[in-house]
Amino acid sequence: MLQVSQEILFLKELDLLKDINRISSITSGTRRENSAEHSWHVSMMPLVFGKYAKPGIDLSKVTSMLLIHDIVEIDAGDIYAFDTAAREAAYETELAAAKRIFGMLDDERGQNLLNLWLEFEANETPEAQFAKILDLTIPTVVNYYSGGLAWIEKGISHQQVLNHLQGPVEGYSIALWQMILPLLDDARLKGWLKV
Amino acid sequence: MLQVSQEILFLKELDLLKDINRISSITSGTRRENSAEHSWHVSMMPLVFGKYAKPGIDLSKVTSMLLIHDIVEIDAGDIYAFDTAAREAAYETELAAAKRIFGMLDDERGQNLLNLWLEFEANETPEAQFAKILDLTIPTVVNYYSGGLAWIEKGISHQQVLNHLQGPVEGYSIALWQMILPLLDDARLKGWLKV
Repeated sequence: MLQVSQEILFLKELDLLKDINRISSITSGTRRENSAEHSWHVSMMPLVFGKYAKPGIDLSKVTSMLLIHDIVEIDAGDIYAFDTAAREAAYETELAAAKRIFGMLDDERGQNLLNLWLEFEANETPEAQFAKILDLTIPTVVNYYSGGLAWIEKGISHQQVLNHLQGPVEGYSIALWQMILPLLDDARLKGWLKV
Repeated sequence: MLQVSQEILFLKELDLLKDINRISSITSGTRRENSAEHSWHVSMMPLVFGKYAKPGIDLSKVTSMLLIHDIVEIDAGDIYAFDTAAREAAYETELAAAKRIFGMLDDERGQNLLNLWLEFEANETPEAQFAKILDLTIPTVVNYYSGGLAWIEKGISHQQVLNHLQGPVEGYSIALWQMILPLLDDARLKGWLKV
């Protein structure tokens, strides 16, 4: 009988995130984005956008949060950003998923990953807040450069995106918001976001 | 004319890594793995396997290296681990890719990312050595749990994998090697790796 360590079984489990598809398409427009490659993309952001974080922030903790933030989707699936009712209803399912998956490492490491996910979700510490802002920001870039496919498919309006993003992103960093807003305005001009 | 910041254009460029396919399949066996999702998967490893690193290592630097290590493939493509001649020939192409892509951030950030990639490639610092070991280790897990698809397709033998992995991985951490070896032995028994 093959004996496999819990670390290897955890790595195997993580692979399933590559099968969780998001609503957004990759920028080549050839297929939907999956949550594993999204997790990589957003985890690159602290290396690039770290200068827009509040002073004193632990950027490596932000990166760790972003690496793990979507792992619960292995059980709970992806929920579209604009489906607010589903988002709220999903928390208990996601919490159970976090406990099951991170609990596969039945020691301090699993507990640390669960705590990191809980901290991200609670959105109270400086690291969680910056991680959430980056995770809110990147879909605009991916959607814009895919030709607005997800916005068009879902019939999203410019105002809906503003309602969703402007408060938190501009509230956190005006510079970051000023990078995103021109993409949204241009998407409206192009008809990818409804007026 | 839409004015877009260099950070946003860099994020857009990174998205192309999602279109670079590797030889390995994801564990569900439904398609090949791409280099963006592989980068996420291997970047999770310092959080899980950090206890097997040499003492005093900066694990967050290891994570950063793993996040960026394959970005050069946007220009240079992926090279199969067992294609040694192609690997050696690719360095100049990959270096040019690193300069072009990280140079899109024409400041300290781009220089830091280029330096991080050069450090990874040189494989001399403790962080680069651990990052390389993790990157060497994960394909065995993914290949094994996909039913050995890549090994079968390429006609790889058990001995070829041992020649490639055992020296560096066992030399770095016997514990890590002892997690991987049973998968390789079982893959030989199952006929996924040639005798």
